[in-house]
Amino acid sequence: MSRKQRKIVDEMLRHPQPTKPQTVEEMRSNFAAMMAAMKVPAGIRTTQTTLGNRPGVIVDSAQDARTGIILYFHGGSYIMGSPYTAMSLTANLVNRTSIRSVSLDYRLAPEHPFPAALEDALAAYRELLDNGVEPASIAFAGDSAGGGIAVSTCLMARDAGLPMPAAAVMFSPGLDKTHTGASMDSKMGLDPFFTRASFTYTDAMYLAGQDPNHELVSPARFADLTGFPPLLLQVGTNELLLDDSTQLADRARAAGVDVILDVTADVPHVFQAFAGILDEADQALDRAALFITQHLR
Amino acid sequence: MSRKQRKIVDEMLRHPQPTKPQTVEEMRSNFAAMMAAMKVPAGIRTTQTTLGNRPGVIVDSAQDARTGIILYFHGGSYIMGSPYTAMSLTANLVNRTSIRSVSLDYRLAPEHPFPAALEDALAAYRELLDNGVEPASIAFAGDSAGGGIAVSTCLMARDAGLPMPAAAVMFSPGLDKTHTGASMDSKMGLDPFFTRASFTYTDAMYLAGQDPNHELVSPARFADLTGFPPLLLQVGTNELLLDDSTQLADRARAAGVDVILDVTADVPHVFQAFAGILDEADQALDRAALFITQHLR
Repeated sequence: MSRKQRKIVDEMLRHPQPTKPQTVEEMRSNFAAMMAAMKVPAGIRTTQTTLGNRPGVIVDSAQDARTGIILYFHGGSYIMGSPYTAMSLTANLVNRTSIRSVSLDYRLAPEHPFPAALEDALAAYRELLDNGVEPASIAFAGDSAGGGIAVSTCLMARDAGLPMPAAAVMFSPGLDKTHTGASMDSKMGLDPFFTRASFTYTDAMYLAGQDPNHELVSPARFADLTGFPPLLLQVGTNELLLDDSTQLADRARAAGVDVILDVTADVPHVFQAFAGILDEADQALDRAALFITQHLR
Repeated sequence: MSRKQRKIVDEMLRHPQPTKPQTVEEMRSNFAAMMAAMKVPAGIRTTQTTLGNRPGVIVDSAQDARTGIILYFHGGSYIMGSPYTAMSLTANLVNRTSIRSVSLDYRLAPEHPFPAALEDALAAYRELLDNGVEPASIAFAGDSAGGGIAVSTCLMARDAGLPMPAAAVMFSPGLDKTHTGASMDSKMGLDPFFTRASFTYTDAMYLAGQDPNHELVSPARFADLTGFPPLLLQVGTNELLLDDSTQLADRARAAGVDVILDVTADVPHVFQAFAGILDEADQALDRAALFITQHLR
């Protein structure tokens, strides 16, 4: 990124840095404020809906849409966020693909720990299928925790005998709540978002005492990805979560799954949220959009 | 790939399978015959040139060209091939990017063992720079051995104090002549092109007794990639050479280099040569073209 871009990014990231432990409500409010600064492209429409008994937001553009649907799962450590905090990411995919999205407002911890979010995601996917949407025209996409939901929902769908979606795109996904990847130590201090302590704090709310050694919680370590659709993993080199993606890519290759591990140096967690500000963000979103359009019928 | 596509690909691959050890001349002639079956898109022009005292072929289209140049290195185990055997690959990149290419006819082993091919590649790159071409407008691209040349030429350029090109694209590159990657054993019998014996045969001609434990011969094991431009590695899951790419991607991430490791399941070595026949080939070339246009100014 250019020096000017770095300055803007640093300024935007400075916003939510807490000086003392935050309450869940403070975390949610600060996260929403930070994400509200992200640019949403012009010409995007949003419409409230429900999907699988949860609220959702249809994101489309006024232009003619292609066939297909992007089922989007927002990030926020399973504690924070909503379809609106991820709107820049969702809208930029919609804008670039001309494919509409439904972004799911799944239940959050600590009020609703694991596996509530995953159950909501599976119910949303099942309702799309029940409504006659072809699985070959559905892509899953998600950022951070939402990337984990995308993977775990594929696992649950497969085990429930449902067909796979056509593709899945993950931005800096969290895929290992045992946090055993080498990047957890090697990137400590380089990652402006996360520390071991911050994961411990949010994991405790999500897991509520349940075992992280489980394929739906830590798929990068435990999941057999046989039968998965093509996967695109985008992540930065300075992330504690880097090896969540490298490990999942290893498992995908071992299972004979198409997988693109797309690593950008020196960018923050979910850098695609800086679309319109950071060149790397727009370029990564262009690659993600091409990947989606290549796999959706 | 579809059943129909697989049948065509299998038929095309059957062509060069030898029943006894081949002479170098037989290998060259069979390789040229196989590659001559690959489709070259319409509207592509080829013009003889020289670059760094070696012959080369300018590949461009009759349409207006964008700024920039793709310096292409053909495959063929350093023993076989020419700009014409890789013409489908080169022309498909030119066609998709509107960027012209120069494909280098570097010296081949056994007449000219290591490092002759690399010296020719570096001389070609140096001549482009000497002619005033901006490094930010040059991409390296290559298949198989040519992917290895792309990486090693970056190493030699860096060590010679030359600027890096803007990007490098590699199709099923050979990057480890120590052949220690796990895929050398795990993919044995799945790979329709290579065996340990076939590598032993061609490596002996290329190395001519020189040590494979050298960063210019086995960069996936020994090279420090610091300062490298963004890299795109495309490879199939069934290749003996799969881990040449996974290991190089590991090294790139460790060096803080942008790297996309783009793995397609169940396709043969340098499957992009099946453009116009195999959907996966055209899709991979589209991704490679986007990558090049994103990084060239």
